[in-house]
Amino acid sequence: MARCVIIGAGEMNPDFLSDFSWRENDYIICADGGLYHAQQVGVRPDLLIGDQDSFVEGFPQGIPALTCRPEKDDSDMMLAVKEGISRGYKDFVLLGATGGRFDHTLANLQTIAYGLEQGVFVMIADENNMITMLRDGSVFMPRMEGYYLSIFSYTPCCEGITLEGVKYPLQKARLTNWTTLGLSNEILAETAQITVEKGTLVVVVSKDRQK
Amino acid sequence: MARCVIIGAGEMNPDFLSDFSWRENDYIICADGGLYHAQQVGVRPDLLIGDQDSFVEGFPQGIPALTCRPEKDDSDMMLAVKEGISRGYKDFVLLGATGGRFDHTLANLQTIAYGLEQGVFVMIADENNMITMLRDGSVFMPRMEGYYLSIFSYTPCCEGITLEGVKYPLQKARLTNWTTLGLSNEILAETAQITVEKGTLVVVVSKDRQK
Repeated sequence: MARCVIIGAGEMNPDFLSDFSWRENDYIICADGGLYHAQQVGVRPDLLIGDQDSFVEGFPQGIPALTCRPEKDDSDMMLAVKEGISRGYKDFVLLGATGGRFDHTLANLQTIAYGLEQGVFVMIADENNMITMLRDGSVFMPRMEGYYLSIFSYTPCCEGITLEGVKYPLQKARLTNWTTLGLSNEILAETAQITVEKGTLVVVVSKDRQK
Repeated sequence: MARCVIIGAGEMNPDFLSDFSWRENDYIICADGGLYHAQQVGVRPDLLIGDQDSFVEGFPQGIPALTCRPEKDDSDMMLAVKEGISRGYKDFVLLGATGGRFDHTLANLQTIAYGLEQGVFVMIADENNMITMLRDGSVFMPRMEGYYLSIFSYTPCCEGITLEGVKYPLQKARLTNWTTLGLSNEILAETAQITVEKGTLVVVVSKDRQK
């Protein structure tokens, strides 16, 4: 099934958004102020979610919009993911999900964890980072030039962590959520394998910002 | 006892650093590339921590330096906090701890949680955010114009959350770490009180970035 790409109101370089690896059948949702980013680079969303104030005048007609009240129990990003799930999507990328207000960034991290609960895959991507989570399972990651691989325990503890194909391998290791041991590993093989037997790992692939 | 302020290599507006609410007896550690930020605004650290490459030439002489190997089990920020704890400090502020590489930001979040384990207080501050954690306890927060108050469960679940003096109060509520209900509250009273009976809450005070 196609992917659901959600554009949020976080900080975003327009070049990053226009150069994003768009697929022809992506289902694109603009969450609240994400509409502004989309307009800037001429990306036409399939759905708008937000309160009415955020629907800028002059936006191309004919795009369905779900309006919500400003006082609600979910962030706009979370609402967009829930809407995507209700439409059958299982693969989500969140853009404009970082930068500026850290409360929103943390809410988006919790949205990834919500995805795990619902059995769907959610990834945050920005110019420097790809962020996702892995629970009680295994994942392969391709090597990308200039990127670091980091893992952190999202649950208080992760057991049975094995990292293969990396500069600092781990074998059945244990990490708590108050350690920085998993920071700045590097993928050496074509693909690295990350396994966690028990717990939720945050997996982050990052590169340094260009000066 | 005096406060320990650690300057890291993250993104930082020089004005934010020079206008920071410095106290005369702050013990200032520059962690790795944080030295560059300090130099830019003429802040003189009491201690440098990093690998030797990061100690820029021409830096004022006579500042003690702890050098470490690039392959180590802790982030530079974590090393700096551990060093501060070993010197008896119990109150830490991390500057230059956000932005750019999200793996570093997450490592710094885990450093706050490490502080809880050690019984010390750690706060991350940047131009738009103040981030800390609260475990099995209560805290008062003053109202600040233009700032939102958000809470998130850092542990899988937080029980007995009570928020008083805010726009959306909570009474003995429960939050999991995959919900965004705690986003964007507002402090209405002079001071809000945040209580969590069981679990660790991330407490974030944020304002929108000025356009």
